[in-house]
Amino acid sequence: MQIGGVPYRTIWPAADGSAILVIDQTKLPFAFETCRLTTLDEAAHAIRSMIVRGAPLIGATAAWGVALAMRVDASDAALAHAITELGATRPTAVNLHWALERVETLLRPLAAPQRSQAAWNAAIAICDEDAATCRAIGEHGLPLLREAFKRKNGGPLNILTHCNAGWLACVDYGTALAPIYLAHDAGIDVHVFVDETRPRNQGASLTAYELGAHGVPHTIIADNAGGHLMQHGQVDLCIVGSDRTTARGDVANKIGTYLKALAAFDNKVPFYVALPFSTIDWSLGDGVAGIPIEERSAREVTHMSGLSDNGDMTTVRIAAPGSTAANPGFDVTPARLVTALITERGVTPATQAGLAALYPQRTRQSA
Amino acid sequence: MQIGGVPYRTIWPAADGSAILVIDQTKLPFAFETCRLTTLDEAAHAIRSMIVRGAPLIGATAAWGVALAMRVDASDAALAHAITELGATRPTAVNLHWALERVETLLRPLAAPQRSQAAWNAAIAICDEDAATCRAIGEHGLPLLREAFKRKNGGPLNILTHCNAGWLACVDYGTALAPIYLAHDAGIDVHVFVDETRPRNQGASLTAYELGAHGVPHTIIADNAGGHLMQHGQVDLCIVGSDRTTARGDVANKIGTYLKALAAFDNKVPFYVALPFSTIDWSLGDGVAGIPIEERSAREVTHMSGLSDNGDMTTVRIAAPGSTAANPGFDVTPARLVTALITERGVTPATQAGLAALYPQRTRQSA
Repeated sequence: MQIGGVPYRTIWPAADGSAILVIDQTKLPFAFETCRLTTLDEAAHAIRSMIVRGAPLIGATAAWGVALAMRVDASDAALAHAITELGATRPTAVNLHWALERVETLLRPLAAPQRSQAAWNAAIAICDEDAATCRAIGEHGLPLLREAFKRKNGGPLNILTHCNAGWLACVDYGTALAPIYLAHDAGIDVHVFVDETRPRNQGASLTAYELGAHGVPHTIIADNAGGHLMQHGQVDLCIVGSDRTTARGDVANKIGTYLKALAAFDNKVPFYVALPFSTIDWSLGDGVAGIPIEERSAREVTHMSGLSDNGDMTTVRIAAPGSTAANPGFDVTPARLVTALITERGVTPATQAGLAALYPQRTRQSA
Repeated sequence: MQIGGVPYRTIWPAADGSAILVIDQTKLPFAFETCRLTTLDEAAHAIRSMIVRGAPLIGATAAWGVALAMRVDASDAALAHAITELGATRPTAVNLHWALERVETLLRPLAAPQRSQAAWNAAIAICDEDAATCRAIGEHGLPLLREAFKRKNGGPLNILTHCNAGWLACVDYGTALAPIYLAHDAGIDVHVFVDETRPRNQGASLTAYELGAHGVPHTIIADNAGGHLMQHGQVDLCIVGSDRTTARGDVANKIGTYLKALAAFDNKVPFYVALPFSTIDWSLGDGVAGIPIEERSAREVTHMSGLSDNGDMTTVRIAAPGSTAANPGFDVTPARLVTALITERGVTPATQAGLAALYPQRTRQSA
């Protein structure tokens, strides 16, 4: 996608191969800076510190992390160390493990001297495939938006989204936002209500930033506001992303997603979840019982960073001194609240049968 | 309630009668300071600048403002001036006009020399009655908490609340928090999950502050987190306040309350609403259709204030530059999601019949 007229992906190798470059998402929306990753540790740090975030981008960064590690030491021990280090960075995102497993399966049988180039090629392939997958999600979601817009018969199509499942979370296009970008580009009058998405505010910062950069009309709202808007007919449909999807269609996504799904269900507003194959965890059925939820730092709740009047990034304490906070990072939306899943293979009900029909071999073919 | 072991109300006359003292709520939660009000203008300023806030406390402060004015000049003209000045401070606050009307009705027939003492006594009575009403709400709610604690059979009773419906919004005790304070004081092991309550953060600042000052264990959470906690059995019951209650038991409260009520209903967690008689609007049935919702400034969403590392109150922009926000201040929770209403008269199902039985004459008797 474009920033200031320049096409970017969120992650790419430097032309001279000396580093991997990423957009530093901790600096957005107030500054656009890129960050060089040259070692395994830097790649792991980028994931852990959320310089890169979003399930697909985490997976892609992990693949590049292995490639960087293999350039220094391509031994079995070094490979195992890289997989372990990167695998421990973020507990909930299944893409991370999917990408690491794919790379490990590829590299392990190879002789050490062949591993570095093979890892590099694999990381490139993962990125290219992710971009193609997201584009396909957009193409499958587009008819749903087009039909909803036709049914509405005038006025903008109001879409609510939670957190950031846009191209900044992926390599390109995004998941939840891919159909929205394609609809906007196709001339459909779309307007997006962007949940602020406390505590890290990725909606107000990242989603608003990338929609604005692409020219998509949008309005930020407090996470508290979506239910009220749905009660009053101001939301035509919801689209969110997924960090992990179970075999029966339960969806783990950013904390607060479940509350919006409840409100959509209560007000008969369609609630779509856009996801790539890589988020599907075929080993799990009941997502509420089975998906581990990352507990993050209390400081993300008690403090907030932003741009002060003098232009400095400043962190302020917003909570009462002496009070602490709990900070679960994700929640699980049961499949019964999901109208449909939008994947790179097509649109399906959020059911075991629906997912199994889309993925009969439980494998992703190239999109 | 207590601050550091010392009992306080939010407003009280100085022992020597030289001034009215209030807790300066613009300094909370980072500093506890009291503010002396000695004139009508100072009382009006305290309301306008939100040194005092919360509907019951605004009404009480206005009554004291009239009393301060009458000490200087108790003429008809001075009385009319005081009512006008105070009535213009927060034109939308219903309690403000209720309190002013009550005091004016009392004073107007009196000879000027009698007005000062009568106004003083009326202000004392309004404060005492508000405290008694809130205390009664607490006493009626206490058995619900005691029974829930017994049923739980060990561990703390985990209560979730939204926004600030505590004693800082009233004269003492609070509404939603009154049963919690009484339970804590009665030795019941309570723990409160405090919704941050974006965009003004009255949970993380005021509710967390007052619970902490009174020694009630609590944990701040993002507004997004409550559904997840309820899915995992970490919330035993919810109690919230009400800004307006319809005759059939629909409840308008701070934006986001509806989402928590949906999650409580979905997880069979009791959802209680604590309210004084003064919030009941007998003219309305369907709250979603009938209650007007205040649209507040976008800046409350796009910016946030807090304490910087150097100890200054600082405002930072948290939203993407160029993006704007919508900011509905309240939402309506339909009665079907409310387990029961807790009022100064007792506990009732959130139904037309339930409310009518509690208030057969639709009037408040002294609590």
